[in-house]
Amino acid sequence: MGDTITMNGGRLLARLDELARIGRIDADGGHGACRIALTDDDRRGRDLVVAWMRALALDVTVDRIGNVVATRAGIEEGAPVMIGSHIDTVASGGRYDGNLGVLAGLELIETLNERSIETRRPIAVAFFTNEEGVRFTPDMMGSGVHQGALALDDMLAAQDADGVTLGDALERIGYAGDEPLGALHPHSYVELHIEQGPVLEEAGVTIGAVEGVQGISWTEHVVTGVSNHAGTTPMRLRHDAGFAASAIAVEARRLAQRIGGAQVATVGAIELFPNLINVIANRARVTVDLRNTDAQLLREAELELAATVQEIADAEGVRIASKSLVRLDPVAFDDGMIALVETKARARDHSVLRMPSGAGHDAQMFAPNCPTAMVFVPSQNGVSHNVRELTSPEHIQAGADVLLDVVLARAERVRPS
Amino acid sequence: MGDTITMNGGRLLARLDELARIGRIDADGGHGACRIALTDDDRRGRDLVVAWMRALALDVTVDRIGNVVATRAGIEEGAPVMIGSHIDTVASGGRYDGNLGVLAGLELIETLNERSIETRRPIAVAFFTNEEGVRFTPDMMGSGVHQGALALDDMLAAQDADGVTLGDALERIGYAGDEPLGALHPHSYVELHIEQGPVLEEAGVTIGAVEGVQGISWTEHVVTGVSNHAGTTPMRLRHDAGFAASAIAVEARRLAQRIGGAQVATVGAIELFPNLINVIANRARVTVDLRNTDAQLLREAELELAATVQEIADAEGVRIASKSLVRLDPVAFDDGMIALVETKARARDHSVLRMPSGAGHDAQMFAPNCPTAMVFVPSQNGVSHNVRELTSPEHIQAGADVLLDVVLARAERVRPS
Repeated sequence: MGDTITMNGGRLLARLDELARIGRIDADGGHGACRIALTDDDRRGRDLVVAWMRALALDVTVDRIGNVVATRAGIEEGAPVMIGSHIDTVASGGRYDGNLGVLAGLELIETLNERSIETRRPIAVAFFTNEEGVRFTPDMMGSGVHQGALALDDMLAAQDADGVTLGDALERIGYAGDEPLGALHPHSYVELHIEQGPVLEEAGVTIGAVEGVQGISWTEHVVTGVSNHAGTTPMRLRHDAGFAASAIAVEARRLAQRIGGAQVATVGAIELFPNLINVIANRARVTVDLRNTDAQLLREAELELAATVQEIADAEGVRIASKSLVRLDPVAFDDGMIALVETKARARDHSVLRMPSGAGHDAQMFAPNCPTAMVFVPSQNGVSHNVRELTSPEHIQAGADVLLDVVLARAERVRPS
Repeated sequence: MGDTITMNGGRLLARLDELARIGRIDADGGHGACRIALTDDDRRGRDLVVAWMRALALDVTVDRIGNVVATRAGIEEGAPVMIGSHIDTVASGGRYDGNLGVLAGLELIETLNERSIETRRPIAVAFFTNEEGVRFTPDMMGSGVHQGALALDDMLAAQDADGVTLGDALERIGYAGDEPLGALHPHSYVELHIEQGPVLEEAGVTIGAVEGVQGISWTEHVVTGVSNHAGTTPMRLRHDAGFAASAIAVEARRLAQRIGGAQVATVGAIELFPNLINVIANRARVTVDLRNTDAQLLREAELELAATVQEIADAEGVRIASKSLVRLDPVAFDDGMIALVETKARARDHSVLRMPSGAGHDAQMFAPNCPTAMVFVPSQNGVSHNVRELTSPEHIQAGADVLLDVVLARAERVRPS
C-alpha cells in the first residue's frame, strides 16, 4: 500500500487563516469569523473555497440546495469516498468548526496531486449549505436534503426572520445550482471535525473515533403558580413557580447522574416572573436539554423527567405545561469505520478514544445510507461557537493525517503502489 | 366604662373610596391607586386627609419629614395614644394598605365627637411619609425619623432616580413642615392594617393580634461557572452556574421547612446567562429572602444558608459571591398590648389569632419606644400591593371596632362614663 505520507499542516493552517479573514471577528483575545449561511460573507467564503477547488483541478458541482461537491477522479468510475463538512458559522464563530473538515479535504487532494497518487475510487470534497441553522432552520440542512432526510421544496421555502425564503437567498448569492439531488451516492463518508467539547483534552488524547451522535430531546416547561408576598405567605400556603422551576433543574441533574454513561442533562434557561426578591413567582419558564447516544436510555430519561415534573407540580400545587421543542434520535456510526479510525490513529502512534459526539454534524445525515466515520481532534478548553475556539497545529496535523489514511483505505490507493 | 359603641363602617368605606379616587387605577377587575410618596397625587391625597382632619376639629401639625399628626385633646394634657399608618402607595397599589389605618383613626375621632365621648389622654391620628419606599429609600422613612431610628438630615438628602432630593420634593408638595422631631412621645401606638397575606382567610379568623414583625435578611448570590456546550460536555466536567443557582433555591426551601415555625424563605429572582437551552450557564444571579420573628432562628437560618451556598459552590466547582442587601432584626410587640387586642376582639365575639407580620409596618418603629399593637384584618386571597387588594366590609367593621376598643382602653374613656 505504499509509504506513509504526511499532510502539509502548514498549508492547511494557512487556508484556515485565509478563509477566516472573510467575516473576521477579533474579540476576547481570539479571532474568529461570522459567515452565517446565505449572507454575503458566506458567498465570499464559498467563492474562495470553490476557487481553491478549481485550482486543484477538481470537478465542481453545485446542487439545488447549494451544496458544493468537488471530485477527483479515481481509476475506476463509481461512487466516491466523500470528505465533507461545512463552512458556514454561527454569529460569533471560530475558525475551525466545519472549516477544518472541508479544508483538510482540499489539503488531502493537494497532497495526492503532488505525489501523483491515484485511488481506485473517486474522492469528493463537499461543503453543505447551512449546517449551523442560524438564519434558516433546521440545522444540517444541506446534508439533510442531500441524503433525503429533508424535502428540498420545504427547505427552499424556509423563511428567515424577515420573511426572505432560503430559495431566494440562495439565488441572490449565486449558489442555486442545477445538480439534481439524489444523483450522488457516496461509497463512504468521512468527516474531520474539532470535538467542540473538553473530553479529548481532559483525557490527554489526540484522536477521537466517533461512535455516533447523541440523540437530543429539548423540552420547555412553563410553570403557573400564585404570586404572593415573600413575608406574609407561610411556606405551606405557597404555590411557587420559581421553586418548581428550580426543582426541575436540580432533578434533571440527578436524572443524568442516575442514568450515567453518555447521558447528559442541561437546564440552560430559567426565567421567573415577576422576578423580584420579595415576591413569590407566579410564572416560570425552564428548558431541559437531554442527550444520550442510546435511543432506549434517552427515551427512559424523557419519561423519567416527565414523571418528575408531574410530581413537582403536584407537590407544589402549580400547573406545569410541558412541550417538546426538538426530538432527534441517536445516530450510530458503522463499526468497521470506527475501528478503521482507531487502527489508523494507532498506526501513527496517536492516542485514540472512542467517544460520542454531543453536537450534531453533517456526518449523521450520511450514516444511515453509507459507511460513515468522524475523526475528532481536541478543542482547547472545550470551547466552540466562540472566537476563542482553538485546536493546536499538532492536533490539526494528526487529525488530517488520520483523515488521509482512512480515506486512502476506503478509496484504495493503487498508484504508486 | 360605658356602653359598647360601634364605628360607622359605611362612612369609613366612603372615605377609603374617596381617597382611592386620587391616582385611581382600574385594572384586572379591581380598582386601586397609585400615590407614590412625594408625587403630586401624594400631595392631593394628603390635602384631602388633612381637610378631613381639620373638619373634625383636630389640631394638625406637619413635621420636618412631612409626617402629619392630628390630635384630639384629652381631659388631661400629656402623651397621646397614637393611631398611625400611611397613605402613600406602591405604583400599582390597593385601596386598603395603610389607608385603612389612617382613615379608621379619623372615623374613630368622628364617632367619639358624635357621642361627645371624652378620654383622659389625647388621641392622635398620624400618617407617616414614604412608608412604601418606592421612589426614595428606605421604606418606613417618616416613622423611622419620627422615632429616631433614621437621621432626618440623611433622609432629606435621599435622592430619587433622577437625583431629586427628598427635601426638595417635600418642599415642592408643600409638606416640609416646621414641627420639630422628637417633640411627641406617644403613650401607646395602635395600627389597624390589612394582613397582606393569606393566613387569616385560610384560618377563617377575623382579627389578627400581631405579635411582632419578622426580621428580614435579603442576600444576593452571583455564581460564576464555565459556559460550555450542553451536548459535548460530560456531567463530571461541568461548572454549571445555572445548576448552582437552582440548587440554592431548592436548599432555601428545605431550610425553611427544617426550621419550621415562622421561618419563611423565598427565591423570587433567578437569572441565567446566556440563558440558552443548549449552553451551560457561566453566570447566574439568585436572591434569597429569609424572614423569622425570632432573632436567633433568623441568624441560624442565615448561617445555614451561607454554609449551604459554600457547599454547592465547592461541589460544582463554581465561585459564588454572596452579598447582604437588607438586614432587619425582628421586632416584638408589647405582651400586654397583644393580649389587649385579643381580649377586645373576643369581647366583640370575633375570632382572633396571634400571628407575626411578614411585612414591615410603621408600628415597628414605635415598638421599641412605647407599648405598641397592630390589629390585622383578612386580605382576600392574601393579595396586596395590587389593585385587586380587597378586605370585606364586615372585616373592616370588625377591625375598626377592635381598634376603637383598644384605643379607648389605652386613652381611658372618662365621659360619658
